[in-house]
Amino acid sequence: MSVLIVGSVALDTVETIKGKREETLGGSATFCSLAASSFTGVRLVGVVGSDFPERHVELYRRYKIDLEGLETAEGRTFRWAGKYADDFSTRETLNTELGVFERFDPKLPPNYRRTPFVLLGNIQPDLQARVLDQIEGKPFVVGDTMNLWIDLFPQKVVDLLPRLDVLTINDEEARQLSGKHNLSQAARWILDHGLGVLVIKRGEHGASAFSKDGRQFHLPAYCVDDVADPTGAGDTFAGALTGYMASRKATDFETFKKALVAGTLWASFLVEGFSTDGLLQLSHEDVLRRLAAFQEHTALPEMRLAMPNDTP
Amino acid sequence: MSVLIVGSVALDTVETIKGKREETLGGSATFCSLAASSFTGVRLVGVVGSDFPERHVELYRRYKIDLEGLETAEGRTFRWAGKYADDFSTRETLNTELGVFERFDPKLPPNYRRTPFVLLGNIQPDLQARVLDQIEGKPFVVGDTMNLWIDLFPQKVVDLLPRLDVLTINDEEARQLSGKHNLSQAARWILDHGLGVLVIKRGEHGASAFSKDGRQFHLPAYCVDDVADPTGAGDTFAGALTGYMASRKATDFETFKKALVAGTLWASFLVEGFSTDGLLQLSHEDVLRRLAAFQEHTALPEMRLAMPNDTP
Repeated sequence: MSVLIVGSVALDTVETIKGKREETLGGSATFCSLAASSFTGVRLVGVVGSDFPERHVELYRRYKIDLEGLETAEGRTFRWAGKYADDFSTRETLNTELGVFERFDPKLPPNYRRTPFVLLGNIQPDLQARVLDQIEGKPFVVGDTMNLWIDLFPQKVVDLLPRLDVLTINDEEARQLSGKHNLSQAARWILDHGLGVLVIKRGEHGASAFSKDGRQFHLPAYCVDDVADPTGAGDTFAGALTGYMASRKATDFETFKKALVAGTLWASFLVEGFSTDGLLQLSHEDVLRRLAAFQEHTALPEMRLAMPNDTP
Repeated sequence: MSVLIVGSVALDTVETIKGKREETLGGSATFCSLAASSFTGVRLVGVVGSDFPERHVELYRRYKIDLEGLETAEGRTFRWAGKYADDFSTRETLNTELGVFERFDPKLPPNYRRTPFVLLGNIQPDLQARVLDQIEGKPFVVGDTMNLWIDLFPQKVVDLLPRLDVLTINDEEARQLSGKHNLSQAARWILDHGLGVLVIKRGEHGASAFSKDGRQFHLPAYCVDDVADPTGAGDTFAGALTGYMASRKATDFETFKKALVAGTLWASFLVEGFSTDGLLQLSHEDVLRRLAAFQEHTALPEMRLAMPNDTP
């Protein structure tokens, strides 16, 4: 089944301890779409300027991404420039140029409106809502967001929760949105506001899922030897997760757990290269090898616990 | 098989958002020993002052902890006072009074010298080395340490590595000791200095083990609803881990993985109460219930990954 993905399309200039890349392909819709396209057909909704390089359009096409929803507007494409600390613990935004993205008003082509899986990439919550307003039927909706939107429009993010099946945010954002430090309490607060499943991303430490009906699933990250550029890791995680579920045509929690593994692995590939490189050089063999390693590194041993010295 | 545990014995005054406790039982040897005593016999090596309350001695006895190695010296017991931020993200040390601990020179009773499992709780690395100097035979040695010792005596910590089978440290300490930010690279650096297995504790995010021969095991933490007092969580983790291995009379990596689960669960119980309370109220049923929940929350689904849209 297809996934409709809305988000930003950007030209990123990124500097890390591993090097610098200028005006590479970025944006939440880009990372989400490329990751999801490993699993299923993708319909992209976004906007680029008249300066958007044709080679990036060709890249999308090579991954069979449907571009009917990608609008080209008069003006410059959204640009972002940032520099990561040598240890990747922080990043500094050096420049943000919204360009045509400033007036982005997502319009779904008619044949997009019944897409059964929707991924609302990280953009302003009003824009996410406007996409849902145009949807027909009852798709499975995954939403991503970030600290900026929780800062600026906390109520809009909360208002969106009942319209989402899944929200992916990181641990700090979960605390920020809920006002609770304890992650279990933060999860309950967010789920109590109408969400189906909350995914808390812990970066290099893994991820946790909490469902409205009390289920939990926690998984470690894949331990990457060498990070080149973490830009887009969260988008890639959400993209692979949603793409996996769409490819299985299923929305149950067991499928969701597998989708989290897919998200984890794809994010681990992404951060090994600059921009989208880590996803582009991906072969089926690489994926199988990494899945096997991840399974070996995380499979819980069968065990019982006998306590000889039971509480006196 | 028995475990020999050396560490501090302290009277802790702790304040958290959940309340305040004055002069409760604490210290690395206390938490390590109580946790290990769930699984096997414990021989404690430490020092207390002449003011050490008899009720704490009785508590150790109730848990069948061998106190032949617990020296009582003239003077005051080691005291520590600290206050945690409301969100537990930081803590401030309000008072440290070394008392008799300042002159602590661990002396092993003759019948302790052939103990097959040794846990060097978090104390000055010289003292840890002096314990190993008195050991006969080839025990399985687990060592714990902290940022303070890596700050003050980095070379002493490094010199100890070849004498340890396992070192448990947290992620920041691994980075500090190795000078590498990437945890996989940090692990390799530490293992290359002669250690057998490195356990990186990630606090509420779980733990990772890396072995000299290239094996890895990553596990999430148990997600605790409500933390009362995290003091001693790392000691408890190391104590349960070592106690579990001693009870299985095994040191292979598969047993070690199970020991990490035990450490994870015992630490989760500990933080739910002040001081040692979380361990004392522990019934066999509580343990079985939490193990089952942990297994349910972390069991990786069986999965294959077919990529319909393989790299073009």
